[in-house]
Amino acid sequence: MDLVERIQCGDARAAARLITLVENGTAEAVDALKQLYPRTGRAYVIGVTGPPGSGKSTLTDRITAELRHLDRTVGVIAVDPTSPFTGGAILADRIRMQRHSLDEGVFIRSMATRGHLGGLSRSTNDVVDILDAMGKDFILIETVGVGQDEIDIVRTAHTTLVVAVPGLGDEIQALKAGIMEIGDLFVVNKADREGADRTVLEIEMMLEHGESDDGWRPQIFKTVAVRGDGVEALTQGVLEHREFLFEEQGDRRKSKERSRWVFRALLQERLTARAVERMAASGGLEPLIERIAGREVDPHTAVEEVLFRLGL
Amino acid sequence: MDLVERIQCGDARAAARLITLVENGTAEAVDALKQLYPRTGRAYVIGVTGPPGSGKSTLTDRITAELRHLDRTVGVIAVDPTSPFTGGAILADRIRMQRHSLDEGVFIRSMATRGHLGGLSRSTNDVVDILDAMGKDFILIETVGVGQDEIDIVRTAHTTLVVAVPGLGDEIQALKAGIMEIGDLFVVNKADREGADRTVLEIEMMLEHGESDDGWRPQIFKTVAVRGDGVEALTQGVLEHREFLFEEQGDRRKSKERSRWVFRALLQERLTARAVERMAASGGLEPLIERIAGREVDPHTAVEEVLFRLGL
Repeated sequence: MDLVERIQCGDARAAARLITLVENGTAEAVDALKQLYPRTGRAYVIGVTGPPGSGKSTLTDRITAELRHLDRTVGVIAVDPTSPFTGGAILADRIRMQRHSLDEGVFIRSMATRGHLGGLSRSTNDVVDILDAMGKDFILIETVGVGQDEIDIVRTAHTTLVVAVPGLGDEIQALKAGIMEIGDLFVVNKADREGADRTVLEIEMMLEHGESDDGWRPQIFKTVAVRGDGVEALTQGVLEHREFLFEEQGDRRKSKERSRWVFRALLQERLTARAVERMAASGGLEPLIERIAGREVDPHTAVEEVLFRLGL
Repeated sequence: MDLVERIQCGDARAAARLITLVENGTAEAVDALKQLYPRTGRAYVIGVTGPPGSGKSTLTDRITAELRHLDRTVGVIAVDPTSPFTGGAILADRIRMQRHSLDEGVFIRSMATRGHLGGLSRSTNDVVDILDAMGKDFILIETVGVGQDEIDIVRTAHTTLVVAVPGLGDEIQALKAGIMEIGDLFVVNKADREGADRTVLEIEMMLEHGESDDGWRPQIFKTVAVRGDGVEALTQGVLEHREFLFEEQGDRRKSKERSRWVFRALLQERLTARAVERMAASGGLEPLIERIAGREVDPHTAVEEVLFRLGL
């Protein structure tokens, strides 16, 4: 059996191998992704985001266990920054998730922040498709930070959990504000800490001023993930949101929204790479960069010239 | 005088107006940026990044004061997430910086996270050029988070400060790893807290495994920004790195690197926008998204078809 067939049979090693090919940007990966695509669209994607230290990894771990209790298979994608000094993704999440390592119903993978300007968003989409094609019922995407790139990543999820913790400073509040719009469910984790109810109240107040464009009223949950408290209710909340999406719209709207993002991220990456390649091949790239650096031409005019030369 | 002339004379209101035009993506803004570009290239750009809660705003405030003591003018760009519920950038940083509000030598602006997939990186570059053209000697760019987008933003700085704090958890360590490569100077802020020396040691250990590609040996500083402790030494450290860049390479390498990033971010944004525009105009965009959502065509094949149709 080839790689694609093995993945369709749920082979974890084959999936891991293809993900590595995707990360390395090989032509073989693109071929395999094309073949797998018709087998995708069945998994339910859950995004988990929030500031560092809010306990997203532990929460992801607990939700995974909860979904396994319900006899559902789970894929976990932990989107990590890469350390140029270690040369790979941070192992912490993988270590934390080790309790699932002997469970064939769970597949866990850390994604490194390679490339730039949206590249991570695209490769995460590819990995979602791989886990989807291998038959995982649920796919959890956990982001490390809450930057724009991470927001773009969880935006493609069916249900997005925004995780907060009590008693963090102004900056956390500011961050929270930036991700309020993408939250379907809000989680106040470490809810045994002082100020949990105040944090719930703050989120409620922010939500009051917003409007959900699909009629869903975002829910707020309190959890203590390390002890598992509140995780069952939270998981039920996810399933309720899923019911809502399917009942209201048969999942079509969300699916189209996902496709739009996936398409745009991929188009952006390929288009830029192709244009830069073309310019480099014709020997025009370096002199242009030199001219911009030397203030002989401004970047806007330079880009317009390139668009013109490409006939766009 | 028109907007461009007023900015060249250092008019803060004119600069603020152009920044708003840039954020709104108007054609007028692009025209003005083209005219201003020959007047840029004199400012020294400092990036300040690190996890939320590390005290970047306070530190930026203190470095600003320090540079003012040295009689240098300063521009500050605080890159903020936008809340869709408040409709604007978070005011916290601006409030914190109010002590400089009557000082004409300081210009402060918060940038909102509008658009997506690299758009913020591009508009921040434009704002740097505006503050540069208005004659600011130093420009500080402070990011709220440490996502990939923020890394792309500070990557264009001459000197990048990576701010850490003692005693944060695993996730912070993971984040730190992702931004180690971009740090010219490292700051352990809140250094009066327990564990400061351990954090310094951890950074030293990580740095030992890395190699600087330009021969610069990254320095580590301890500060207590709220009290101003260590900020003078840190500012001197920035000036030393500046000396190093100019002496070693006459600033050319860094300037070319900056131009490459600025060009690529702008090319990516304009190229994608143009391609999507073209497709939408021909009525081909929505049917294609529908086909991807319906699993009739995979995103990779769809993008290849688009590239082919565009003659790329």
